[in-house]
Amino acid sequence: MEITHIEHLGIAVKSIEEQLPYYEEVLGAKCYNIEVVEDQKVKTAFFKFGQTKIELLEPTSPESTIAKFIEKRGEGIHHIAFATPDVQAALDEAASKGVQLIDKKPRPGAEGLHIAFLHPKSTHGVLTELCMK
Amino acid sequence: MEITHIEHLGIAVKSIEEQLPYYEEVLGAKCYNIEVVEDQKVKTAFFKFGQTKIELLEPTSPESTIAKFIEKRGEGIHHIAFATPDVQAALDEAASKGVQLIDKKPRPGAEGLHIAFLHPKSTHGVLTELCMK
Repeated sequence: MEITHIEHLGIAVKSIEEQLPYYEEVLGAKCYNIEVVEDQKVKTAFFKFGQTKIELLEPTSPESTIAKFIEKRGEGIHHIAFATPDVQAALDEAASKGVQLIDKKPRPGAEGLHIAFLHPKSTHGVLTELCMK
Repeated sequence: MEITHIEHLGIAVKSIEEQLPYYEEVLGAKCYNIEVVEDQKVKTAFFKFGQTKIELLEPTSPESTIAKFIEKRGEGIHHIAFATPDVQAALDEAASKGVQLIDKKPRPGAEGLHIAFLHPKSTHGVLTELCMK
């Protein structure tokens, strides 16, 4: 498939507010957007480092997959998102090569992206998102 | 501190050989370098996605920190490395802001980089490397 760059890294956090000083004052990035994604039960905060964004993911409910991730593994890197010019074509190609998909079709994500996840069983433990604008 | 981009992501893997087909045939990247870093007891394989590399880290000994990471958490994303024009200045700034350091001075890493790690206690569970050429 064609991947142009790493669009973002998703990091599971208990509290965006508590982590802002690290990203802003230590790493020197600026949080340029905070957005709630209702259907994923998360609040997101975005920073940019070159081509790649860091997306902090704070659960807004104990049923959020992010809350369950934190409960099981603690705070930390949750997923990697690759930018591709055509998510559907990339999904079809991955499936044809034996990759298990979480999403068979792209769905709406934060920041107006069209996103789809591959299954970590097929990506050696790395939760992997494909996305495009 | 000044960060220009995400230089690489380190991913802990049991076997580079087993993962090559996923990175090369599914994601369409090319492994352009395989290198053993003796003092870290790892074999590394590199792929490039836009500005950012993915560095697969395979332990060459059960005493490797990567072997211990895999034993505890399974295969997956191990660390994020930010590129900065001056690692020592970035370390000094981080320390002055209360960040705990693993390395007080840069040391040699793979691909001729000068690298230093911040302590995950100060980075909310994300093992973080600063690096420069």
